[in-house]
Amino acid sequence: MLRDHTDAEARAALPLKWGAVPEGTIPAWVAEMDWHTAPAVTDAVTAALQRGVTGYAPFDDAGVGAAYAGFARRQWGWEVPPEASVPVPAVVPGLRLVLESLCPPGPVVVPLPCYPPFRDVVALAGREAVHVETDPDDPEAALDLAAVERAFAAGARTLLLCSPHNPLGRVARRAELEALRDLAAHHGARVVADEVHAPLTLPDGPAFTPYLAVDPRGIAVTSTTKSFNAPGLPCAQVVALDPEDRAVLQALPLVQTHGWSPLGAVASVAAWRHGDAWLAAVRDRVAANRDLLGTLLAAHLPLARTRRLEATYLAWLDLRAYAAPDGRGPDPVARAEAGGVRLGPGEDYHPGLPGHARLNLATSPDRLTEVVRRLGVALAPA
Amino acid sequence: MLRDHTDAEARAALPLKWGAVPEGTIPAWVAEMDWHTAPAVTDAVTAALQRGVTGYAPFDDAGVGAAYAGFARRQWGWEVPPEASVPVPAVVPGLRLVLESLCPPGPVVVPLPCYPPFRDVVALAGREAVHVETDPDDPEAALDLAAVERAFAAGARTLLLCSPHNPLGRVARRAELEALRDLAAHHGARVVADEVHAPLTLPDGPAFTPYLAVDPRGIAVTSTTKSFNAPGLPCAQVVALDPEDRAVLQALPLVQTHGWSPLGAVASVAAWRHGDAWLAAVRDRVAANRDLLGTLLAAHLPLARTRRLEATYLAWLDLRAYAAPDGRGPDPVARAEAGGVRLGPGEDYHPGLPGHARLNLATSPDRLTEVVRRLGVALAPA
Repeated sequence: MLRDHTDAEARAALPLKWGAVPEGTIPAWVAEMDWHTAPAVTDAVTAALQRGVTGYAPFDDAGVGAAYAGFARRQWGWEVPPEASVPVPAVVPGLRLVLESLCPPGPVVVPLPCYPPFRDVVALAGREAVHVETDPDDPEAALDLAAVERAFAAGARTLLLCSPHNPLGRVARRAELEALRDLAAHHGARVVADEVHAPLTLPDGPAFTPYLAVDPRGIAVTSTTKSFNAPGLPCAQVVALDPEDRAVLQALPLVQTHGWSPLGAVASVAAWRHGDAWLAAVRDRVAANRDLLGTLLAAHLPLARTRRLEATYLAWLDLRAYAAPDGRGPDPVARAEAGGVRLGPGEDYHPGLPGHARLNLATSPDRLTEVVRRLGVALAPA
Repeated sequence: MLRDHTDAEARAALPLKWGAVPEGTIPAWVAEMDWHTAPAVTDAVTAALQRGVTGYAPFDDAGVGAAYAGFARRQWGWEVPPEASVPVPAVVPGLRLVLESLCPPGPVVVPLPCYPPFRDVVALAGREAVHVETDPDDPEAALDLAAVERAFAAGARTLLLCSPHNPLGRVARRAELEALRDLAAHHGARVVADEVHAPLTLPDGPAFTPYLAVDPRGIAVTSTTKSFNAPGLPCAQVVALDPEDRAVLQALPLVQTHGWSPLGAVASVAAWRHGDAWLAAVRDRVAANRDLLGTLLAAHLPLARTRRLEATYLAWLDLRAYAAPDGRGPDPVARAEAGGVRLGPGEDYHPGLPGHARLNLATSPDRLTEVVRRLGVALAPA
C-alpha cells in the first residue's frame, strides 16, 4: 500500500531531507517519510487544483474540524466537537499563537529532550523556558512530574507537552496525563499539547489518550502534515474546547492566524476522512522497522540502547558507549556522518546531553538495514 | 487564454472571496481573480504532487531567486542577482520579518490609504506607525514626500512602500523613488517595498521601476501569489541586495523563516519562468475592464470619481457624492452590500476617510457590468 521512493525519487521529492546531504549519504535525520503521501491526499489536492482552489483560505475552517472529529471518534473513541478546531498554518506557529494569546504570564515548562523548535517558539513568544530533564538512564523515560510540580511552584504557568513524545517515541499513559492535569489545575497553569504524532501511535503499544480528553482546560495543536508526510500543504489546528479560547484566536489579526492553505485544508480533510487504511499500513511498516532495528542493533551496534518505540517513526538512540572513552574525539553523530549516515544530533533535542541521536525509521527495510550496517562500521571501536 | 469561473465554479474555487458573501451577492472585495491561475502553474504543481513533493522546503531557495531574476530582466530590464531572494511564507510575514530583523529602531511610516495588514504588521513588530495621508482630492495621489520628510525628521526610520500601490492603483515614478531614496539616506532610514503587484502593471501606463533599482539599501518583498492568483501555494521572497541583510534573515530560527511550501516554490518558479504570456492576457483583461468601468461609471454612477488605473486590478472609488447629504445614514459600501455587491470598505484602507471603496476588476466583463449596474441602483439618490 505504501509507495516507496527510490533514492533518485526521494531526492526529487524531499528536497530538505535528501537535498541537505551529499549524494551517497543516507538521510535519517529530519522527520519526513521516504514514501509518497496517501493517494487519498494526492487525489483530493489534484482535484482541488483542477477546480482552481489556489486562493485564500476561507473564514471558516473548511471542514477540517468535522473531519478531525470523525478521526478522533474512530481512532481513539474520543468525542471532540467539530467546532473545536481553529486552523493555523502549522503546528509550531500554532504553539506560538497559543503561547502569545492563551497562556497565563510566567515561564513555560519545556521537558527535555524536546523537538528543537519548542525552545525557539518559547523565546519568540517572549517567555522564559524552564527545562525539566528526562534522566537518560530512566528505562521508563516518563515526564518527571515531581520536577514539573517544582517548576509550577516556582512560578511557571504553562507546560509544552509533546504527546506522543518526539524524540522519545513514548506514549503518555492516561494516569500520567491525569496527574499532570491535577498539578496544572492546582497551580493555575495551562498544558499545551503538541499531538501531531498521535496518528502514528504503533499498533502493539499503549493506546493514545488525547490530552483534552482528560483536561478540558488544555489546548492541543495537531495536524495531518506529520502522519501524512505533507507539511508542504500547510494546515494545522489549534483544538480548544472552551469557546472563549477559540474566540480569542479568532479575534487575532488575519496576518497572525491565516497562512494556512485551502489546499492544505483539502489535504487535511482527505487525510482525516479517508486515510485510515493508509495510516494503518504506515504504522505496520514503522512497527516492523522498529523490530528490524532491534535485530540490526544487536548485530551491528550491540552497545546502543533504545527504548521500545511506542509512537512516531523516530528512534532515540543512546550511543554513549560508542563515544571516545576519554570523552574527546568526534561525537558518534559526526562519525556516523563520515560513515555515510545523517542522524539527528542528540544535542539538538537535549542541549548538553552527549552521545545521543535520533534515527528516522520511515524508510524501506533495505535502507534501514544499510543505515545500521554503516553505523556499525562507523562507530566500531578503533 | 484566461479560463473564467462561472459563479458556481468560483464558489467552489475561491472559498474566501465567494464563500464570505450570501448567494446572489457578487463579491468584488478581496484581491482574488475570478479565473484559474496559469496552466503553467497548475501543470507544474500537479507534476510535483505526482513526484511526491509534499514535504518540507529545502535550505536553499528552490530556484525561486533565479527564476525571479529572469522575469525581472525580461519585464523591467532590471538585473537582480539570483541569490538576492530569501524565501518566506507570504508577503506580510515577510514584511514582519524585515521589520523585526532588518529595520533600524524607531517608528514606521505607513502611507494611507494602505493595504490593511500593513498596520497590523507594524503593531505585531512592536513598532509605532506614523501615518502619511494621501489627500483624497489630489488628482495625482502621489506619496507626500514633504510629509515623509517630516516623519523622518521626527524620528521615523522605516517606510513601508506599496509599489505599485494598493489600493490607489498607482505606479510610482522613478523620480519619486529617487527622491524617497535620498530622503531615506539623509535620515538613515530604510524603505521596505511591497512589490507584489508589480507584474500587474498595466500595458498602457507608466513603467514599473523596482525600488531596489534606485536604492540598493532598500528591501523588497514580492511573490507570484497575487499576480498568479495562488496564495494557496505559499511562497514569497524578501529581496535584499546586501549579503549581510540576507545573512541576518538566514540566521533566524527556521520557525520564523520557513513555512513556505516547496509546492509554492514550484508554483513561483513556473510563474516567473513560464507565465509571461498568461500574465499579458491578465493585464489586457484588466486594462479592458478598467476602460469598461469608466464607461459603466459614466452611465450608472456619474458622480463617482476614480483615477485611471495604472497597476493592480483594484479600483479605488470616491463615492462621497453618494453619501447621505447630512453625513448620516448608511455608508455607500453598506448600501452596495444591500444591493448585492460586496466592496472593500474604504475605511479599512484609510481609517477615518468616509465614502470610499475598493472595487475588484478581476472578473468577467459581464459580472463587472452587473456590479456597476447594481451599484447604480443601490446608490441612486432616494
